[in-house]
Amino acid sequence: MKVGVVGVGYWGPNLLRNLIETNRCSELWCYDLCSSASAKVRHRFPCVRFATSLQELIGRCDAVMVATPVETHAPLARAILDAGRTVFVEKPLTNSSQKAEELLQLAERRRAVLMVGHTFIYSPAVRKIREYIDNRTLGDIYFISASRVNLGLHRKDVNVVWDLAAHDLSILYYWLGAIPLRVAALGRACVGRMVDVASLHCEFPEGVVANIEVSWLAPCKLRRTVLIGSERMVLYDDTQTDEKIKLLDRGVKLEEPQSFGEYQLTYRTGDVLSPFLDITEPVFLQTRHFLDCVETGARPETDGFVGLKVVTALEAACESIDKNGAFVETSPSTSACAPRRAERARHAIGANP
Amino acid sequence: MKVGVVGVGYWGPNLLRNLIETNRCSELWCYDLCSSASAKVRHRFPCVRFATSLQELIGRCDAVMVATPVETHAPLARAILDAGRTVFVEKPLTNSSQKAEELLQLAERRRAVLMVGHTFIYSPAVRKIREYIDNRTLGDIYFISASRVNLGLHRKDVNVVWDLAAHDLSILYYWLGAIPLRVAALGRACVGRMVDVASLHCEFPEGVVANIEVSWLAPCKLRRTVLIGSERMVLYDDTQTDEKIKLLDRGVKLEEPQSFGEYQLTYRTGDVLSPFLDITEPVFLQTRHFLDCVETGARPETDGFVGLKVVTALEAACESIDKNGAFVETSPSTSACAPRRAERARHAIGANP
Amino acid sequence: MKVGVVGVGYWGPNLLRNLIETNRCSELWCYDLCSSASAKVRHRFPCVRFATSLQELIGRCDAVMVATPVETHAPLARAILDAGRTVFVEKPLTNSSQKAEELLQLAERRRAVLMVGHTFIYSPAVRKIREYIDNRTLGDIYFISASRVNLGLHRKDVNVVWDLAAHDLSILYYWLGAIPLRVAALGRACVGRMVDVASLHCEFPEGVVANIEVSWLAPCKLRRTVLIGSERMVLYDDTQTDEKIKLLDRGVKLEEPQSFGEYQLTYRTGDVLSPFLDITEPVFLQTRHFLDCVETGARPETDGFVGLKVVTALEAACESIDKNGAFVETSPSTSACAPRRAERARHAIGANP
Amino acid sequence: MKVGVVGVGYWGPNLLRNLIETNRCSELWCYDLCSSASAKVRHRFPCVRFATSLQELIGRCDAVMVATPVETHAPLARAILDAGRTVFVEKPLTNSSQKAEELLQLAERRRAVLMVGHTFIYSPAVRKIREYIDNRTLGDIYFISASRVNLGLHRKDVNVVWDLAAHDLSILYYWLGAIPLRVAALGRACVGRMVDVASLHCEFPEGVVANIEVSWLAPCKLRRTVLIGSERMVLYDDTQTDEKIKLLDRGVKLEEPQSFGEYQLTYRTGDVLSPFLDITEPVFLQTRHFLDCVETGARPETDGFVGLKVVTALEAACESIDKNGAFVETSPSTSACAPRRAERARHAIGANP
Repeated sequence: MKVGVVGVGYWGPNLLRNLIETNRCSELWCYDLCSSASAKVRHRFPCVRFATSLQELIGRCDAVMVATPVETHAPLARAILDAGRTVFVEKPLTNSSQKAEELLQLAERRRAVLMVGHTFIYSPAVRKIREYIDNRTLGDIYFISASRVNLGLHRKDVNVVWDLAAHDLSILYYWLGAIPLRVAALGRACVGRMVDVASLHCEFPEGVVANIEVSWLAPCKLRRTVLIGSERMVLYDDTQTDEKIKLLDRGVKLEEPQSFGEYQLTYRTGDVLSPFLDITEPVFLQTRHFLDCVETGARPETDGFVGLKVVTALEAACESIDKNGAFVETSPSTSACAPRRAERARHAIGANP
Repeated sequence: MKVGVVGVGYWGPNLLRNLIETNRCSELWCYDLCSSASAKVRHRFPCVRFATSLQELIGRCDAVMVATPVETHAPLARAILDAGRTVFVEKPLTNSSQKAEELLQLAERRRAVLMVGHTFIYSPAVRKIREYIDNRTLGDIYFISASRVNLGLHRKDVNVVWDLAAHDLSILYYWLGAIPLRVAALGRACVGRMVDVASLHCEFPEGVVANIEVSWLAPCKLRRTVLIGSERMVLYDDTQTDEKIKLLDRGVKLEEPQSFGEYQLTYRTGDVLSPFLDITEPVFLQTRHFLDCVETGARPETDGFVGLKVVTALEAACESIDKNGAFVETSPSTSACAPRRAERARHAIGANP
Repeated sequence: MKVGVVGVGYWGPNLLRNLIETNRCSELWCYDLCSSASAKVRHRFPCVRFATSLQELIGRCDAVMVATPVETHAPLARAILDAGRTVFVEKPLTNSSQKAEELLQLAERRRAVLMVGHTFIYSPAVRKIREYIDNRTLGDIYFISASRVNLGLHRKDVNVVWDLAAHDLSILYYWLGAIPLRVAALGRACVGRMVDVASLHCEFPEGVVANIEVSWLAPCKLRRTVLIGSERMVLYDDTQTDEKIKLLDRGVKLEEPQSFGEYQLTYRTGDVLSPFLDITEPVFLQTRHFLDCVETGARPETDGFVGLKVVTALEAACESIDKNGAFVETSPSTSACAPRRAERARHAIGANP
Repeated sequence: MKVGVVGVGYWGPNLLRNLIETNRCSELWCYDLCSSASAKVRHRFPCVRFATSLQELIGRCDAVMVATPVETHAPLARAILDAGRTVFVEKPLTNSSQKAEELLQLAERRRAVLMVGHTFIYSPAVRKIREYIDNRTLGDIYFISASRVNLGLHRKDVNVVWDLAAHDLSILYYWLGAIPLRVAALGRACVGRMVDVASLHCEFPEGVVANIEVSWLAPCKLRRTVLIGSERMVLYDDTQTDEKIKLLDRGVKLEEPQSFGEYQLTYRTGDVLSPFLDITEPVFLQTRHFLDCVETGARPETDGFVGLKVVTALEAACESIDKNGAFVETSPSTSACAPRRAERARHAIGANP
């Protein structure tokens, strides 16, 4: 396969490194407007070739990966799909759901594959937790709470919600088979002009609620998600190398009301299990999956539809921030691709036959 | 001094233990309707005497501490104040700001001392952080984020906001010299009928924002508060025995816009300091302060006014939960005692002359 | 039962508190030469009565617990056993194996019960690990490594080995059914005249080796024991409240030599399990067991024989320190009680029929 | 500069990566007998050229780095020095002090630079601690305790002492300006034939003692060194990314004996400071220093003499293991280069004028 990468500033070199490690590409190309980024790549990856225009890159490759500022995703992906090439776009897919819809439709028309870089979906930890949800190890899910904060690089192209909450919304979509029905969010621009601290309250089908806290202003890095189920709880700490997941056999139950309607709660504490997890880097697994899709034409797990859904939820969150925390509904997708996903949703939480 | 305790179920015995440890009370009395609670006290603290009625207890004591379900706080405190005795009421002072106001007025009329059990105000960690705020070690405060969650005893008298967020609101009042101007809160009753998970977004004077997460449903106990300032950050983890506070010399600054209005952010990372803290139990320090006030008639640091302010904020939070997250203003206090507090506020953050 | 405590300085009040909590003693007595210690007890536990002499205490009680400096253990225990009373002696039993032997013989002659305060044997964590050893969850034990260090109170009656390693040697005796066959130890008196830092290398039957590090000079408290087995590993951290034990499905195996005698190692990494453990305080469980033995005359789990074995090992360790690390054999016990223990040893590791 | 690397199996690729990152080498060459290792390098670093013999590599380069099994260090280094090239040898320098002496003499004769890969000497954390020692922040050092354990790759060329304790001995040499005067060590081969678990007791000039625990059999990775001084303590945890060092203002002091010779200890607990540390990778700093030495001909900080001293201490440790823990003196170096080091030692701990 011949694969190209557009944008080799901050994230693109990671894509190149992983492409090289798969050892499956006969030629690697890249294209970037910035000459200093290109020089670094030339130095670090002498095997990579340089295209002098986007058109040249597209012409020379079977598939192209896009790792540029978000506002350029749509025009770049459009050009690549128009040429009938497989395209991978970093998350978030676009900065508006309308543009994402258009890309999906274009991909359909061109019968071209569109994949979005929701990397966490390829993380063994995230997959193990979906198993726990699907096989009802957790019971009914009461709520989910996620903190994704650090003293981070303030991005210039998008705010902290589009940057960090995109991860959580894609993970939640993977776990629950849905994006929030509605979102209430509050955010602030503490330093600079972009919102750099925000909290989202998300209401999913079946009554599941998720709180997401994202911030570029935090003393310590947190990548901590808690799932509270009626049967068990999960603590997922992605900053750990060992024991990323803990499955805790703990809970509270409401007993049948006694005489006179006095209700009783019982508390349960049991073992804690940290399941063994494959330590392969999710970006590598994602890259391998992308190359599989290029080869076979198969639909990626994180296809354009997933990308669209996440963008829809992000849009709702930012609209809520603008409305100072008022609830905003996510508009039901009108995409022709939607129905196919009903299947997946059926396996998800709360959807017992 | 002769001191009495009303209510010796869950928390009252702690008050007794600390009263005994001060070694300053000539007689200790208690009163409880529940005979099994009384029997336990009789066994554990044989020196404590038992009153057969509230009136007897009040009659025999110089001061009375109340550790009963919240709805009984107001009538009990009223009876004690009416008798001209010094009274200590566990937090929250009452379950409505109106009742709290009435107690304050009664205390004024009787010239009796009213103290509220906002224990954290006596914690050396909380006091050290106020020092950092007051001497501008942190610079301007951008925001504060607090998590107070555990797999907790679901209380039957109040919901998780009145139970746990009362601590955070009293701490914030102590740090910032104010309660929130307005609150937006969301909460759920996952198990049982009481709200057992909630998040509060609080807006303070001078633009400071605090997020408070409280829950009785969590896999691990968190008592974690982060303060983000323009100069430094603080991580306060009350579950630690060593290093409860970390003062981090970290931050981000917006530099003067360069030509063409491009703004630049600079990141700074420096030392981390964990200051030495006295390890005396805050409940003991609070008890000692109470006995000082009984002896001298001095106004307690956590007097009725503080208690009222916290109740006012809790009321606003719960009203917001009922209104599904809509912002609720805290009504400005009309209490005659209010003006005296202006002094304190002057020392607090943002109030530079 | 009427129970007495001799010595109410540092540790004795803990025994009193636990005796009170069992709610099984009709009278509690204590005796201490130090009037300020007695005064504190009088204040804290008004129900406790005071004897004016050891003889009075012995005369008034069915059983006596001894919590005094180590050099007084033997004469005190002798007086109590002579009077035919049940006696509990804090660890270590005595400061020489000869005195310990004499106490055992005296107890035999008087048919009186002698129990030693090896509290950790009653800890649910220590018991769970013995289960893992006995049911061969760990496979063959390669070695054990224990760190018991803190910035501790330098004792004046014994050095750090007698103070802290006594715990580890009793735990190892409980796990392995034996004390070390021989010990090599090195120690230093960094501050003061007592050895305050030491490391012990202990060789047990069946080739098991244990390293024990003890210190009164350490920046942080460590109570960390690691067991490395051929099948699994255990990490036991007694400073944790949650997850004191982790059972790790990790290991290395030597594969059958291939052609030409090249050996191969295979590494295995699997799940980590933190079993649920009862959180009752070990001192309480020990106190309850003591009262059971007082009532029934049964042999305690940590009887004089266990106490003697631990003293024998401690003696060997200190002799080795004096000999600058030379190996010292533990002399085989000549006690008449020894044979009874063969049973226990049979269940222990490596002793497969 | 033209730089070559001999041996590109496990560690060599790291050297190549860092050489590339310095961006200071006009040509990079490598040589390895193993064709699969070479193939991986060819794939990962397409800019690296391949020599077909050691002689070719030496002929084409100004300097050569050796990252091969330990027994080949001496002959390879000899060949490179003989050709007058600058040589870098991974730690440990050789597997015997005699061979190390010979290399030093050869380097002197050829006036060629010999550097040893004691990487930790370039770690900002290790350097900061030397500052604390040199400026007497810690006061007198009572002892040092180091744990370097993990579930590690059992090496086939050397045992765990030569593999892991080499790091600690080089760090201690850097901190204290000396290797141990004598060592007592115990070790075992739990799995396989090589010693895979060992503990070393090292006695340094001025009465400083260091215990080193190394193991390839451990449930969790530990890289934990504690320094106990009369004034302060240091906890150095190299597995942390943040707060690798903690400087603790804690200690115990022996007060002047009171009347009747009763000694008193006083305990002190103060602040904990985690100093900011540069996060540049030590291997990169080491590589940069090596290239500086190649350019200028300067003596490296970790020259052959340091390498020899560490080998001398490792030899003593392994001799002690063979003698079952008996103390073994490190023979005083006879190298002509030794006197020059007296200077360094003068700055080290305990060497007050």
